[in-house]
Amino acid sequence: MPNRNPSTVSIDPALKSFMQLAGERVEHKLSALLPPETTQPCRLHAAMRYSALDGGKRIRPLLVYAAGDALECDHASLDPAACAVELVHAYSLVHDDLPAMDDDELRRGKPTCHVNYDEATAILVGDSLQSLAFQVLSDNASDDIPASARLQMIQILARASGSRGMAGGQALDIYGVGNEMNLPELENMHIHKTGALIRASVQLGALTAQASATRLKRLDHYAKAVGLAFQVQDDILDISGDTATLGKTAGKDQAAKKPTYPMLLGLEGAREKAKELLHEALDSLADFDEKADHLRQLAYFIIGRNS
Amino acid sequence: MPNRNPSTVSIDPALKSFMQLAGERVEHKLSALLPPETTQPCRLHAAMRYSALDGGKRIRPLLVYAAGDALECDHASLDPAACAVELVHAYSLVHDDLPAMDDDELRRGKPTCHVNYDEATAILVGDSLQSLAFQVLSDNASDDIPASARLQMIQILARASGSRGMAGGQALDIYGVGNEMNLPELENMHIHKTGALIRASVQLGALTAQASATRLKRLDHYAKAVGLAFQVQDDILDISGDTATLGKTAGKDQAAKKPTYPMLLGLEGAREKAKELLHEALDSLADFDEKADHLRQLAYFIIGRNS
Repeated sequence: MPNRNPSTVSIDPALKSFMQLAGERVEHKLSALLPPETTQPCRLHAAMRYSALDGGKRIRPLLVYAAGDALECDHASLDPAACAVELVHAYSLVHDDLPAMDDDELRRGKPTCHVNYDEATAILVGDSLQSLAFQVLSDNASDDIPASARLQMIQILARASGSRGMAGGQALDIYGVGNEMNLPELENMHIHKTGALIRASVQLGALTAQASATRLKRLDHYAKAVGLAFQVQDDILDISGDTATLGKTAGKDQAAKKPTYPMLLGLEGAREKAKELLHEALDSLADFDEKADHLRQLAYFIIGRNS
Repeated sequence: MPNRNPSTVSIDPALKSFMQLAGERVEHKLSALLPPETTQPCRLHAAMRYSALDGGKRIRPLLVYAAGDALECDHASLDPAACAVELVHAYSLVHDDLPAMDDDELRRGKPTCHVNYDEATAILVGDSLQSLAFQVLSDNASDDIPASARLQMIQILARASGSRGMAGGQALDIYGVGNEMNLPELENMHIHKTGALIRASVQLGALTAQASATRLKRLDHYAKAVGLAFQVQDDILDISGDTATLGKTAGKDQAAKKPTYPMLLGLEGAREKAKELLHEALDSLADFDEKADHLRQLAYFIIGRNS
């Protein structure tokens, strides 16, 4: 078991290799799924590829593959779930960046979709990426997964994305700007905005691997803790990181007077909270053997990352 | 067989009764599906209900029920498909009305979602209504439909909604404003923007009813013709209708220099085109008995309507 203090942990070489392989894998699959830029409407398809490819840490697909690994599921079966959660994530970033929402000009070190293309295109990019997520999960090609399990995966992803999941969390975030938010309210917002899709990622990986109800429950507990830890770390990075490393505008939450964990708990308090959540995540995996190490390493990575 | 000249046909009493019953049915089901306004985030849920309830002619759900009727399927089994296509339609209207898109202030006689609420809410309303459509199709409750058929329905709806379907059509429409568009280009735009979801509605109804491949093909042919006819009639109404009857701003396409059928074919030419498409739709149903009369009556209605 590695040292449980995230600040002393650099990226584990095994995790680095897993992240690279799984990251390349999902990139390749997404590239094949997304219509080529030569297909009409070319501008829309170019913008979809711009927004979904070559970007980000791919945390959600990594969680799909890592959850599958914990249950000895082959990566080929996990591809549809990995692509679907990343497509939903990519759509949410494009819409969240819009002027009427968070009004961000920089994302993953590149101009945001509406800046590089236009607002109408960005709206349609998000809409189309969402449809594509459900298309890939319902596709015949993934017929090594039973139809009933695929329906369950679609149900989970749809709930996690909608008004009682991710989109609802974004609404709470927007409606919260400029208003006082206490800790339970902040937590509730993040549980929806980021947590729901992270939980769905682990659940979709586990369902692809046909996990037992007990294992599914433990993995979900892991995912809940990791999802919240992810957001706490995001808030910490917003005040302690710099724009170049983050690939998005640093200090933005502070400037917008958005409630954050460091604001409510202090920077040290927020770091303590992240560490507690890391321990909770690791404890949830107590009954899993070394095949769950990618999940463990990802939990460390999420809290130790600097971008 | 009724007179085939749509201009002499008023609404058939049998159609009127079907439209009322099926319309009330889908309204009731949608109301139960949509989270109550008292559920957080309340503003988002209120805006979702505002956008999806109490509106429109419900053409797409009516086509689901009518296609099911043609194959003697009970309406309860058809409810998920009827709700799903209407949710996708409602989401598309909310997003199409946004300032960055068509910039419409009036829809179904009421202020559009972003006018009545705000732009951020309207973006999230559309996103959440789309998720809800896939949620209802994948829900356990509809287990009288085999899982494989439900996956096929989700696949069809996802494709029809995405960048190679409805959202792609909206992109073609937006990119076409101010540019010359010839008849094949105009048709291609409408086949995607309106046609794809209308075809999906009929297909989802037919798949719920477990239609044979032959019947599915004929119904799809009907839907293609009706879908295009619907748009031709929309274009005609935009120049010959008035704002009060339409419930949306009349003359808007003309003012925006959007290409329309009357512009390319003249008003009489467009009316002729609508009639031809009506005949094509009716001919596709030649092998169906009187149980397909709701489909026939809907085809007349779509071309004869004045709003």
